[in-house]
Amino acid sequence: MEAYLDNSATTFCLPEAAELMMDLLTKDYGNPSSLHMKGVEAENFINEAKKKIAKTLKVQEKEICFTSGGTESNNLAILGSTEANKRAGMHVITTCVEHASVANPFAYLAENGYEVTYLPVNAYGEISLDDLAQAIRPDTILVSLMQVNNEIGAVEPIEEAGRIIKEKNPNTLFHVDAIQSYGKYRIYPKKMNIDLLSVSGHKIHGPKGSGFLYIKDKTKIKPLVYGGGQQKGMRSGTENVPAIAGLGVAAEAIYTDFDAKIEHLYALRNHFIQGVTAIEGVSVNGRTDRNAAPHIVSVSIDGVRAEVMLHTLENEGIYVSAGSACSSNKPSVSHTLKSIGLKESLLDSTIRFSFCAETTMEEIDYAIGVMAKHIPVLQRYTRR
Amino acid sequence: MEAYLDNSATTFCLPEAAELMMDLLTKDYGNPSSLHMKGVEAENFINEAKKKIAKTLKVQEKEICFTSGGTESNNLAILGSTEANKRAGMHVITTCVEHASVANPFAYLAENGYEVTYLPVNAYGEISLDDLAQAIRPDTILVSLMQVNNEIGAVEPIEEAGRIIKEKNPNTLFHVDAIQSYGKYRIYPKKMNIDLLSVSGHKIHGPKGSGFLYIKDKTKIKPLVYGGGQQKGMRSGTENVPAIAGLGVAAEAIYTDFDAKIEHLYALRNHFIQGVTAIEGVSVNGRTDRNAAPHIVSVSIDGVRAEVMLHTLENEGIYVSAGSACSSNKPSVSHTLKSIGLKESLLDSTIRFSFCAETTMEEIDYAIGVMAKHIPVLQRYTRR
Repeated sequence: MEAYLDNSATTFCLPEAAELMMDLLTKDYGNPSSLHMKGVEAENFINEAKKKIAKTLKVQEKEICFTSGGTESNNLAILGSTEANKRAGMHVITTCVEHASVANPFAYLAENGYEVTYLPVNAYGEISLDDLAQAIRPDTILVSLMQVNNEIGAVEPIEEAGRIIKEKNPNTLFHVDAIQSYGKYRIYPKKMNIDLLSVSGHKIHGPKGSGFLYIKDKTKIKPLVYGGGQQKGMRSGTENVPAIAGLGVAAEAIYTDFDAKIEHLYALRNHFIQGVTAIEGVSVNGRTDRNAAPHIVSVSIDGVRAEVMLHTLENEGIYVSAGSACSSNKPSVSHTLKSIGLKESLLDSTIRFSFCAETTMEEIDYAIGVMAKHIPVLQRYTRR
Repeated sequence: MEAYLDNSATTFCLPEAAELMMDLLTKDYGNPSSLHMKGVEAENFINEAKKKIAKTLKVQEKEICFTSGGTESNNLAILGSTEANKRAGMHVITTCVEHASVANPFAYLAENGYEVTYLPVNAYGEISLDDLAQAIRPDTILVSLMQVNNEIGAVEPIEEAGRIIKEKNPNTLFHVDAIQSYGKYRIYPKKMNIDLLSVSGHKIHGPKGSGFLYIKDKTKIKPLVYGGGQQKGMRSGTENVPAIAGLGVAAEAIYTDFDAKIEHLYALRNHFIQGVTAIEGVSVNGRTDRNAAPHIVSVSIDGVRAEVMLHTLENEGIYVSAGSACSSNKPSVSHTLKSIGLKESLLDSTIRFSFCAETTMEEIDYAIGVMAKHIPVLQRYTRR
């Protein structure tokens, strides 16, 4: 049996999205900037995708800016908005559990004269709204929060945060990294006071190399690249029409039968948590109820190194991540696991399981069985 | 009949590249950063593409950095190298006929304290090597030249330029925008003293959203985006494995039967130039011999506006560009056409025909026939 339980690293692309891409690569391959019919047709595919995506967020189509993926979206949001607004202040806020594509742009800002406040998290990986309220100052130009933590599935209180930010300083921009949450939560930027929202295509069964940044109308932001002025100058370069069209298909699909999918994911998650925590020495990080995301389970295994566990599972056809797996190959110590106060000995013994709506209960049972079989053996081996 | 003669705007993607992409989207869809087999397999596809591309340029595989396309490649080369080397000087050199994805990063540099020297061109769109030699100073950190002009097909003397640059100042970096030349010329960065070379996938029958920057080993350059540290930190973000693999296939294919393809393109070009210049009021910009690129013909039509000509051709199934067409929709006055001294009245009466190896002589004959039929009528209409 095979069980791909690494859906927070990447997902399969929907066949209907891939087939549309195939057409747009080989047949309707016009450049949207061309003035002739083939260009106009290509532009229509972009507009169609924009419409589908805007509908899921209840925003305007012109507020969607396509990028090459989540990392570019986060960088454009953070570096672009601070560069455009630095005259209003150079204080920015984020958390200590962000993905590298947020944490590293903030590190860049810190090196370049900005003052960065890092909000701590509790044992479940959640920020405190009081901390946030206290951190906001007249010179705070940006708050960036992830909605769902990519390592342990912690959910940050985005809506309340948005309210507090705008109450304390209406000029502070609010960026949400929704890369792990879009498609798992209903997100309405207008209602939630979100100015910038990052989404990646390949986490929601869309193509790799696709993504978008929601940019609230009239938000001051500078581009990262300069060129032909495509996408209102926000993102120059011939639009990746096939990927954009594929992303539109995926975005629409992920919100179709939404409630049923979420129920299914929580059923998988609950069953999995029950099964693995029954194994001696196995614990789950973060909340185990509905206050955590439906698709991510972080599991620590006393006395078994993450890499050993990962390859043991791999041998049985089960694919998971050690740590966050979104960063290039070298597994380094996880800031998130450290921040929630996980004990030292477990930092290197934690793996992430992540599901998608197509994951089956049989796969979950299989994974539990494989773990129950191997973990006691591996633990004994370690203790020798 | 249909004739797509807009191959410098974008090309069809090779079916074998698209089919490989389809597989990598829906079946072998691992994240190359994942430590398990599916991640390793994905990484192998990247390495395979790197190998194919490196071979065409006779460079090392590790010198290839994948991007989301030509615009990002040019921006990374120009903004990244100047940011990394500005302590050595803030003087940079380019030409007055560059594509927007080079011209606009230079405009950004000019606004941010750099001194930019713009080299003029002759009536054929070519720079003077004497001008270049005189422009290089001890504080010159970058020279950026396009190899083939996207509007008129002028070819810049890259090899001689590289020699002169390194003679005058060995520390000056040499960037070549090869977006219109890769696949049409044999380019060997080592031999040609090129430190940075930009290529776009969708101009060579690869996928949109693909491209690379050749970065000579040990060249100091800063990334545009920060994140998981993929591609040695030069370009964070989950690699677009399908597009990268597709680009590898296209790169290998475009240099297969290379000489025969180039002969074919020049045969098309010569025949086309002969045919259209026989029509009254029609002239061709730039050189008409082998000193111009094989695939681009810029045609000025006295008394007929470019947009009118474009749509007239479109009605007959012929697709071309008005001006450069690489910039977003709004056709603005072409810097290239102005720079070669094209007379005012023709600036707005110029269209670009661009071929690929699959373009047939029949399509060329058809295009000539359609033009011969319509141009006299359109000219009469204008003159009323």
